[in-house]
Amino acid sequence: MKIKVINPNTTLSMTRSIGEAARAAVSEETIIEAVSPSMGPVSIEGHYDEALASVGVIDEVRKGEVDGVDAYVLACFGDPGLMAARELATGPVIGIAQAAFHAASFAGRSFAIVTTLGRTLGRARDLVLEYGFERQCVAYRACEVPVLGLESDEEGSYRALEAECLDVLESTHADAIVLGCAGMAKMCARLSDRLGVPVVDGVAAGAAFAESLVRIGVGTCKTGEFAAPLPKQVDGLLESFSVS
Amino acid sequence: MKIKVINPNTTLSMTRSIGEAARAAVSEETIIEAVSPSMGPVSIEGHYDEALASVGVIDEVRKGEVDGVDAYVLACFGDPGLMAARELATGPVIGIAQAAFHAASFAGRSFAIVTTLGRTLGRARDLVLEYGFERQCVAYRACEVPVLGLESDEEGSYRALEAECLDVLESTHADAIVLGCAGMAKMCARLSDRLGVPVVDGVAAGAAFAESLVRIGVGTCKTGEFAAPLPKQVDGLLESFSVS
Amino acid sequence: MKIKVINPNTTLSMTRSIGEAARAAVSEETIIEAVSPSMGPVSIEGHYDEALASVGVIDEVRKGEVDGVDAYVLACFGDPGLMAARELATGPVIGIAQAAFHAASFAGRSFAIVTTLGRTLGRARDLVLEYGFERQCVAYRACEVPVLGLESDEEGSYRALEAECLDVLESTHADAIVLGCAGMAKMCARLSDRLGVPVVDGVAAGAAFAESLVRIGVGTCKTGEFAAPLPKQVDGLLESFSVS
Amino acid sequence: MKIKVINPNTTLSMTRSIGEAARAAVSEETIIEAVSPSMGPVSIEGHYDEALASVGVIDEVRKGEVDGVDAYVLACFGDPGLMAARELATGPVIGIAQAAFHAASFAGRSFAIVTTLGRTLGRARDLVLEYGFERQCVAYRACEVPVLGLESDEEGSYRALEAECLDVLESTHADAIVLGCAGMAKMCARLSDRLGVPVVDGVAAGAAFAESLVRIGVGTCKTGEFAAPLPKQVDGLLESFSVS
Amino acid sequence: MKIKVINPNTTLSMTRSIGEAARAAVSEETIIEAVSPSMGPVSIEGHYDEALASVGVIDEVRKGEVDGVDAYVLACFGDPGLMAARELATGPVIGIAQAAFHAASFAGRSFAIVTTLGRTLGRARDLVLEYGFERQCVAYRACEVPVLGLESDEEGSYRALEAECLDVLESTHADAIVLGCAGMAKMCARLSDRLGVPVVDGVAAGAAFAESLVRIGVGTCKTGEFAAPLPKQVDGLLESFSVS
Amino acid sequence: MKIKVINPNTTLSMTRSIGEAARAAVSEETIIEAVSPSMGPVSIEGHYDEALASVGVIDEVRKGEVDGVDAYVLACFGDPGLMAARELATGPVIGIAQAAFHAASFAGRSFAIVTTLGRTLGRARDLVLEYGFERQCVAYRACEVPVLGLESDEEGSYRALEAECLDVLESTHADAIVLGCAGMAKMCARLSDRLGVPVVDGVAAGAAFAESLVRIGVGTCKTGEFAAPLPKQVDGLLESFSVS
Repeated sequence: MKIKVINPNTTLSMTRSIGEAARAAVSEETIIEAVSPSMGPVSIEGHYDEALASVGVIDEVRKGEVDGVDAYVLACFGDPGLMAARELATGPVIGIAQAAFHAASFAGRSFAIVTTLGRTLGRARDLVLEYGFERQCVAYRACEVPVLGLESDEEGSYRALEAECLDVLESTHADAIVLGCAGMAKMCARLSDRLGVPVVDGVAAGAAFAESLVRIGVGTCKTGEFAAPLPKQVDGLLESFSVS
Repeated sequence: MKIKVINPNTTLSMTRSIGEAARAAVSEETIIEAVSPSMGPVSIEGHYDEALASVGVIDEVRKGEVDGVDAYVLACFGDPGLMAARELATGPVIGIAQAAFHAASFAGRSFAIVTTLGRTLGRARDLVLEYGFERQCVAYRACEVPVLGLESDEEGSYRALEAECLDVLESTHADAIVLGCAGMAKMCARLSDRLGVPVVDGVAAGAAFAESLVRIGVGTCKTGEFAAPLPKQVDGLLESFSVS
Repeated sequence: MKIKVINPNTTLSMTRSIGEAARAAVSEETIIEAVSPSMGPVSIEGHYDEALASVGVIDEVRKGEVDGVDAYVLACFGDPGLMAARELATGPVIGIAQAAFHAASFAGRSFAIVTTLGRTLGRARDLVLEYGFERQCVAYRACEVPVLGLESDEEGSYRALEAECLDVLESTHADAIVLGCAGMAKMCARLSDRLGVPVVDGVAAGAAFAESLVRIGVGTCKTGEFAAPLPKQVDGLLESFSVS
Repeated sequence: MKIKVINPNTTLSMTRSIGEAARAAVSEETIIEAVSPSMGPVSIEGHYDEALASVGVIDEVRKGEVDGVDAYVLACFGDPGLMAARELATGPVIGIAQAAFHAASFAGRSFAIVTTLGRTLGRARDLVLEYGFERQCVAYRACEVPVLGLESDEEGSYRALEAECLDVLESTHADAIVLGCAGMAKMCARLSDRLGVPVVDGVAAGAAFAESLVRIGVGTCKTGEFAAPLPKQVDGLLESFSVS
Repeated sequence: MKIKVINPNTTLSMTRSIGEAARAAVSEETIIEAVSPSMGPVSIEGHYDEALASVGVIDEVRKGEVDGVDAYVLACFGDPGLMAARELATGPVIGIAQAAFHAASFAGRSFAIVTTLGRTLGRARDLVLEYGFERQCVAYRACEVPVLGLESDEEGSYRALEAECLDVLESTHADAIVLGCAGMAKMCARLSDRLGVPVVDGVAAGAAFAESLVRIGVGTCKTGEFAAPLPKQVDGLLESFSVS
Repeated sequence: MKIKVINPNTTLSMTRSIGEAARAAVSEETIIEAVSPSMGPVSIEGHYDEALASVGVIDEVRKGEVDGVDAYVLACFGDPGLMAARELATGPVIGIAQAAFHAASFAGRSFAIVTTLGRTLGRARDLVLEYGFERQCVAYRACEVPVLGLESDEEGSYRALEAECLDVLESTHADAIVLGCAGMAKMCARLSDRLGVPVVDGVAAGAAFAESLVRIGVGTCKTGEFAAPLPKQVDGLLESFSVS
């Protein structure tokens, strides 16, 4: 089985650590291919960045279909391009926010999201609503570390994240923490040990669930909303995305 | 006051009729500028098309800010790129699905959406949920006419649309009909006369509400989620979208 | 176009400032007629007051229909008599709470209501629920200034209102403030400058949206729930409200 | 214990049968006083009628407080004036729609409302929402018999009602029927025998629950929203409702 | 009329005080039979305890049906075995959490639950959701006194409970308090006097409502989900629960 | 890794086929132990059966903890005893209804449940609500085959199930089918081929997700609601369940 993990931003050091987190979450016979698109923003911290990143996600799924990929994981917490990717792919496509919410809901009654910048929490709220986790998600928090700061100052970032987690647990007694950025994957185990409650990294959850779905034969329904894109001309800068 | 109405697809004949519907909905001193982006799909009928169209919407809002535009209307029923546009614009940005839902909710207790292709109804559901109209929207219907078919066979399209509207009114007694495509704007008056209930075209509603919001001084809140995009490099095909 | 703005209480100084706020929100060709009923309480600060005020609202809409009014705005934040007014009127009828919620929802993801007396917040909650803005409305606050106090001590009232707004913005980061009383209309611009987020006065929003709805031809659906009242005898003190 | 049952319309024959239904639902030591106001519409079949009827309800509660009434039942399915009545009364006030929904929810998972005229179903929906029974109420039906028709043609009305109940049970398998008009009280037992599922008359439910609440000492909270109306002048036709 | 009040735990001193609370809530002609099952935990403070207690509840309802019981009250705030009991009983079955929520919702807009141990609040949340009181229940609190502590240290327990109630009223302004344990029944009147808002004991509410439902002829619908259990062999330790 | 799959009924032939479905869903190194309790009903078709089956589930989890089990799957669609099992277990516990809903929600926007007897659909509704899938689950259907009928007449059962699935897909266009009984596991692949949409068997989904959760280190939060049961005496028939 081949699972393609797409880091929607173009920062390759982050792609590498995402790949490692995904590999640790699946069985040995499953191949993890971790990539970044050739186009798009270096990090994703708002709606503008999300919209642009979706194009690169589409591009990578398109390529993945040629390569015989069995399932995709979109490794940005805004799940950019997820719906479009489902139209393109024949196998399952999972966003890491989606995966993390599902995993956290197995851990108890409630979870709290702790992310990078506060301005991205609106997107988190939209996804919680869209996926149906309004009751379970009891807090939305940000440690105000930029995405690339997770790489450039790993220890400082960890401390800010830990502080925010401790604070939200004290005030909400949430049963689990959901990490709000793919770049936090490598801090997950340390944080879980420290906090004493389950901490969910969406990259690991996404990879594990993608493998599960392929194994039990549950892919995207292709007969309605998520059928292949209609043949159509696309103009200008994006003309290479025309569908024939 | 200058309102820029962006048709997110690249079909200019549709842009023209959208511009006319918008002009009829505002006072004489307001200038309507109706445009299509230089890039993107010729019509929008699914999530893939939406994702690609968002880039063109962003491009036009970016230009509009240079031109001193006061408000924007996104004239595609999926409201593609709305969130990103709000980050870029200093004035209000309204999607036509959003505008139509708000207008219809003044007409009574319930409305029904009648759109082009059934595969786009999932997006309509997402927007109804996101904007908070779950209770008011009592039916999602499609007449299965492609977007460009609204132009190529206007009379046939009208008949299919009318039939679907009559059917949904009979079964749900909805208080209003929301037209699910900017391309249906020109059919709105005829349909309303025929059906005997309010019929809402989002282009007209969007233009009128945009003018209202500018007049009462209610724009997008720019201090949090919708602050300007962060300075950031964008790579590859999309590098012209880098923010400095 | 003639829009009748009904101040449901009988305090005429308030009616005048309401009329001014409405006039500033519409185009020049639109006529604003601001009135108070000949009957009812001098201010509206609870359910008892609301129930009594509804009768005067009905009376004014009945007269307005004779006068050829195109649309109505009910200028009390409890939207008293709105449903009954819709049965009587042939054109749109908008309550200022309703209008304010709709306007605020274009400004971002969330808004906070700041009103006069805390005992009226229950009614605000009912309207938020009924109109479908539960998710957007993130706080209900009162500055505990009585309605008539807004007129008798304008500066003191403003300061109490401002303090409450600053407090709610700090604790909720709401994207907009909704003013919870028609008597606050004149404080809207000053408050908006001070707070740095959009502040919505329902009188202005109601007038602007009423004009919009007339222009785009979306009135109340008259074929079902909001058809004209049935012919019926009314007894005793209210017999002049009999419908023949 | 004295329970005042207020029929908000002025049709006394209906008041009598309502009184009988209430009396059958309480213990012998409880006194039922069934009245109609001296003012208001002869029947209540829409929002206009409701608004006018609220004034008479208020008037009767005001008198009841002088008379030492322990609890009130408002015997119209729209629960007109309920909130205002709670401000006036020191004991519990129950609307029959409210009572019926609560009673029906003890009977199983779901209920269907069957009322008189279809135009009143909007009000039923508002109450279901306000009281929190959206999930339990699975159907809204009308037999299209006017309220006074229940008296003038009892057998014909019964048959229309029975037919509608049978139809809704077949299509929804609801666990209970809620009768949507106080005038249907006398048909409740016959209908229940015929249908084989619990049928709830709100008059009986309201009287029984009012007695229960007095017995267990649970009245309206009088420290906040439902404190006594504020002292206030009321003008014109309604000046007798001034509060000193 | 005979109402059987089942204390699902096996602590008989608690059963006695529960019986007294129930007796005070019904008319004189109604017989209250208060019992504990012969099997099950001595107190119920978690899901494990609930699951085991359900068996004893079933056993007592089974016996009650032989004895001609008219209605049942399940006197543990988790309403253990309620659904199963409804299948077995021909008359109404009410849980005290359910009864308390209904009673409290007549007292105003909002209530707060104050219970024994915090670990039981999850169950309270589940019941609030299942019964449809999400909007009304504005706070979930625990005084961290174990169930049997209510008996062994009554004064200390009362003080802890009172302190928690005062705190939650100050922060939420809830209109009523719901006591979260049958063992608190005897503290209800004292607490209500002290707090100045209605305090609801589910045992009293359950008994009063059970009497009401029998009187108005509204029992469980027996034609669908709650029909008698199907004939079936039960194995091992529980074989005496086989249904023939 | 050892996963214990508990069939909560005592029909061993069903336990065997459940074990096979689970084994096919996990990697080779994972051990599946499929068992039935020594006590409880032979099949589970209602709330009475569920309540009794919970005891056996508890018993098997208790034993599993001694045996070093890493995760549990409860293989009955009512998820009986799930909450209690979570208190007992140190690793994750998944119910098959829960697992199936999560899996189906990855397949698209909507799913339909098709189960055995209609009387069990109420429990399915409760679980959909509790787990947060109200929006996704668009239909509840029963083929009216008893649970043991799935074994005694496999072909007839399959045909009834297929017919119901085809019917619900035609009327709702759901994106996936959720099988409402562990006994249907063996029909899953055949049905999926026939229907052309994903069909989800909760046994397979539960086993796969249990393995995933263990691998990514997300178990039940043990610091609050789901901490180990408190030490407590249990009386009578169930005294062996006392906790010391």
